[in-house]
Amino acid sequence: MHAYRSHTCGQLRAKDTGETVRLSGWIHRKRDHGNLVFIDLRDHYGLTQCVLDISNPIFSLVEQTRLESVVTVTGKVVARTGETKNPRMPTGEIEVVIQDYAVQGTADVLPLQVNSDEDYSEEIRLTNRFLDLRRDKVHRNIVLRANVIASLRRRMIAQGFTEFQTPILTSSSPEGARDFLVPSRMHPGKFYALPQAPQQFKQLLMVAGFDRYFQIAPCFRDEDSRADRSPGEFYQLDFEMSFVTQEDVFQAIEPVLHGVFEEFAEDRVVSAMPFPQIPYEESMLRYGSDKPDLRNPIRISDVTEVFRGSGFGIFAKAVEAGSVVRAIPAPGAAAKPRSFFDKLNDWAKAGGAAGLGYVIFEAAGAKGPIAKNLDEARLAQLKEQAGLKDGDAVFFSCDKKLAAAKFAGSVRTRLGDELGLIDPKKFEFCWIVDFPMYELNEDTGQIEFSHNPFSMPQGGLEALLTKDPLTINAYQYDIVCNGIELSSGAIRNHRPDIMYKAFEIAGYANSVVEEKFGGMLNAFKFGAPPHGGSAPGIDRIVMLLAEEKNIREVIAFPLNQRAEDLLMQAPTEVPPARLKELSIRLDLPLTKK
Amino acid sequence: MHAYRSHTCGQLRAKDTGETVRLSGWIHRKRDHGNLVFIDLRDHYGLTQCVLDISNPIFSLVEQTRLESVVTVTGKVVARTGETKNPRMPTGEIEVVIQDYAVQGTADVLPLQVNSDEDYSEEIRLTNRFLDLRRDKVHRNIVLRANVIASLRRRMIAQGFTEFQTPILTSSSPEGARDFLVPSRMHPGKFYALPQAPQQFKQLLMVAGFDRYFQIAPCFRDEDSRADRSPGEFYQLDFEMSFVTQEDVFQAIEPVLHGVFEEFAEDRVVSAMPFPQIPYEESMLRYGSDKPDLRNPIRISDVTEVFRGSGFGIFAKAVEAGSVVRAIPAPGAAAKPRSFFDKLNDWAKAGGAAGLGYVIFEAAGAKGPIAKNLDEARLAQLKEQAGLKDGDAVFFSCDKKLAAAKFAGSVRTRLGDELGLIDPKKFEFCWIVDFPMYELNEDTGQIEFSHNPFSMPQGGLEALLTKDPLTINAYQYDIVCNGIELSSGAIRNHRPDIMYKAFEIAGYANSVVEEKFGGMLNAFKFGAPPHGGSAPGIDRIVMLLAEEKNIREVIAFPLNQRAEDLLMQAPTEVPPARLKELSIRLDLPLTKK
Repeated sequence: MHAYRSHTCGQLRAKDTGETVRLSGWIHRKRDHGNLVFIDLRDHYGLTQCVLDISNPIFSLVEQTRLESVVTVTGKVVARTGETKNPRMPTGEIEVVIQDYAVQGTADVLPLQVNSDEDYSEEIRLTNRFLDLRRDKVHRNIVLRANVIASLRRRMIAQGFTEFQTPILTSSSPEGARDFLVPSRMHPGKFYALPQAPQQFKQLLMVAGFDRYFQIAPCFRDEDSRADRSPGEFYQLDFEMSFVTQEDVFQAIEPVLHGVFEEFAEDRVVSAMPFPQIPYEESMLRYGSDKPDLRNPIRISDVTEVFRGSGFGIFAKAVEAGSVVRAIPAPGAAAKPRSFFDKLNDWAKAGGAAGLGYVIFEAAGAKGPIAKNLDEARLAQLKEQAGLKDGDAVFFSCDKKLAAAKFAGSVRTRLGDELGLIDPKKFEFCWIVDFPMYELNEDTGQIEFSHNPFSMPQGGLEALLTKDPLTINAYQYDIVCNGIELSSGAIRNHRPDIMYKAFEIAGYANSVVEEKFGGMLNAFKFGAPPHGGSAPGIDRIVMLLAEEKNIREVIAFPLNQRAEDLLMQAPTEVPPARLKELSIRLDLPLTKK
Repeated sequence: MHAYRSHTCGQLRAKDTGETVRLSGWIHRKRDHGNLVFIDLRDHYGLTQCVLDISNPIFSLVEQTRLESVVTVTGKVVARTGETKNPRMPTGEIEVVIQDYAVQGTADVLPLQVNSDEDYSEEIRLTNRFLDLRRDKVHRNIVLRANVIASLRRRMIAQGFTEFQTPILTSSSPEGARDFLVPSRMHPGKFYALPQAPQQFKQLLMVAGFDRYFQIAPCFRDEDSRADRSPGEFYQLDFEMSFVTQEDVFQAIEPVLHGVFEEFAEDRVVSAMPFPQIPYEESMLRYGSDKPDLRNPIRISDVTEVFRGSGFGIFAKAVEAGSVVRAIPAPGAAAKPRSFFDKLNDWAKAGGAAGLGYVIFEAAGAKGPIAKNLDEARLAQLKEQAGLKDGDAVFFSCDKKLAAAKFAGSVRTRLGDELGLIDPKKFEFCWIVDFPMYELNEDTGQIEFSHNPFSMPQGGLEALLTKDPLTINAYQYDIVCNGIELSSGAIRNHRPDIMYKAFEIAGYANSVVEEKFGGMLNAFKFGAPPHGGSAPGIDRIVMLLAEEKNIREVIAFPLNQRAEDLLMQAPTEVPPARLKELSIRLDLPLTKK
């Protein structure tokens, strides 16, 4: 018989009754009945109940072994009878009567209970991550993450993509967040940077002719921590394709995302393909956000004309001065008590708004402070434009266009939650498309890039030469699920002539473009194919599937919020000789007294 | 029709004749026949011949487009006839008659020809890697690498392993090579280190109960460059398993390695499973190395007794003083001219040896300077012990045991090459096992660890307590292919009590062990399973399969030998403000005049 196990702890069934077996695992639970001791033995695969009676000379040894010790048990499989069967455990039909027993690894008194749901501080959990990871929920999350990534890989390969590794010791990114730097020993005074994303390398792979690249890519940003972003490193499903239109990118990646969500959905429903494509303008209007949560059925509408010249002076005056009014319906909210509206008003004020006006539509007519100042025709127009029926309420956001949209969006989200309109058993995907290429900086009057300066403008060079820049959209797109942006992507600008022109419009001379982005630009001068891609965040995908709000629940060994590894003691001081070798020395800030 | 292509450049066949198609790709080759121009259009998938005659108004545009420009061609598929067919090209049955043509990306004058085998300097190649990667051999190597890694992943998953990511921003390794350091912005004066290998994390995953881990793991060592090692980063197939013996590790990984080599072997033969297991002692004796190339049929033997008290005074005296004599047969070398022996003698002297003695066995008897000093009985004994027949020669290595073994090994390798005994169409795997746990430091008289102090000693605590340490072997093993060590591995020492004792024998107090290896040791105190693993080098596997000697031929974007990325300009200087933020400043060495 094998030294450690003939079966795993998740394997034995009634049909194995009578067999002599060997199992190894952790003592998950122990129940001492005086002359009988029961052990739930746990490994990666499951739990098996083992039992020993006092007649066996090893009884006291077994009794004394601490929880979470690793033991090997040899014994006979016995069928459980009647009510001793446990239908909730796959191995619940049997138990193993211990004949022989060996302790492989003893456990000290535990700083953290593995077999309970007790909540521990992040500090205790991360300091003892090797114990924390044994707990059922975390263990399942980490296995889920592994399975999601394996599934993504399988599906990308099935779509004709090939995985290539790109360098981790590389150079600073020309744009974006703060890099992590790595001092070079061989080149005193110089530094590598860890990649914020393999953006340039994947584009170079396209220029090199590799056609369909992907990578489960580690990325690094020296940013402060957020619940949904790890300080330090994170992973993305980085991909890029040559000779494609925007629609080709969607068709390549939708089956991958849809497939992986379906695979791990369990009782949840994934939106059907093709995913809806929502132009940026429409998204800002209808959802007050470019990351709409489509599970929320509320749709915003523009009701500026309802208020123009109306008796409701505050809005009427604002509209005259160029503001817009957005209506956010609250279906069925007419039945809500006054406190519902007051609470929302307080919430809006706490967020910096002047208040949150509303109208209630009842069979008897419109109610509320604003309704008094609107005539019947305007109220009817409002009801129609905002898609309201009797029994609904409607809230308003009145401000300059962008601010009005954003505030309306937060009201929509809040109402969705308050009214219980969000179905937690749904994954609703959409693409946001047609992002504007440029925007006007209101302060400087200058035209600036709205998002990514390296995206291809719709209409190409022709558009740049002939159209008002503020009317040009880019081939740029976001993929959003349940209000979470999984990734931005774009058809890239692969033509130096279009790139020079695009930057010129934003006020950059050719020489500046060459200085800042010379590497890519140079590569594009030797035959670049049209190409595009995206890079959905792996951690966010797993968080959605695991229904976790904190990214550290889906990473085996995360840094804590202060970017420390409490288990391995990172970061740490290093001997001066090591720094000397790297031609650097410390330059510590003065201690504040 | 799609904007860029209806087919790839590797797709069209005779059956497509008559179809109107669209292809996009790079102009690989152009042949101008005055009134006809032929273009070989290339993409990731292949080459297609396109043709245009002068009657088409776009003729001059096509004629003028430079090689390596990206173009889209629309036209009709025409069957080639008779000798114009090209049986060596998968698309050689057809050509595309160009009707429409668009340039997607123009190419400047090329610094490096893509369509030739011309050799360029590493500097030109790496500076223009996006062009270099388009060349057939490099392109195929990088695709091979991608396919090998995908195959390894598939096979590891089939063996029940799960891939987990371990941190890249972590702490310094307690042993081994030089780390790359990353200054922490949030913790002034402290540094992260990039992992030399995920060794500690994979062991922690075992302690956390994950059972079978693997990872295609990026590893980082700040070491000087070698042909077979990249400066900076490299990849290994890192794996670890719980509740296993050494034999279990072999049985898990052999099908993976054998499988992947078989998959990409083409006309080469992979040694059958199970791979031979050669004890370290035997390997040093028979092959003069712990990384034997088993394609070489030469076997070394110990012939010390042949020379003890013999008339060949130099060896006899050395043997009396404790040296050994090793015989390295040279099959069939009796027929070689005197110059063959002289050349080998010169080679040995150039390497620092006193010379390279030999005996030639012919039907007429033994010949050579040494033979004269050996009587018939000793010659017969030599012939038998070294496995010689008439027509063979035999060389000798006489020295202290380890030095004699190593020199014999280099003679064996040299003879294998000189005599053409190495079959380049073979992949010969073996395991080297039973490495000694300790060795005697001849200078200090102290007992030291031979290899990895964290391996489990054979016989466990019992052996440490009762046996002469110098007779204890470790559960440690190397996997070797064609004389290349792919990886070391071990069954780990997972028990704190055995670890303390093992270190005590090598002269370390418990307090020192706790200070240096406290993290792992602490984890092992909370229920650690027996576990073991290994980490075959990915780059080396790909080098073997690609038959490349230089690691930079199998990496898409390698650093050069001076650890520079010539394409992305890394490492580079950074603004002082960035350093300030990281609480470091430069401490440059004084310039040498």
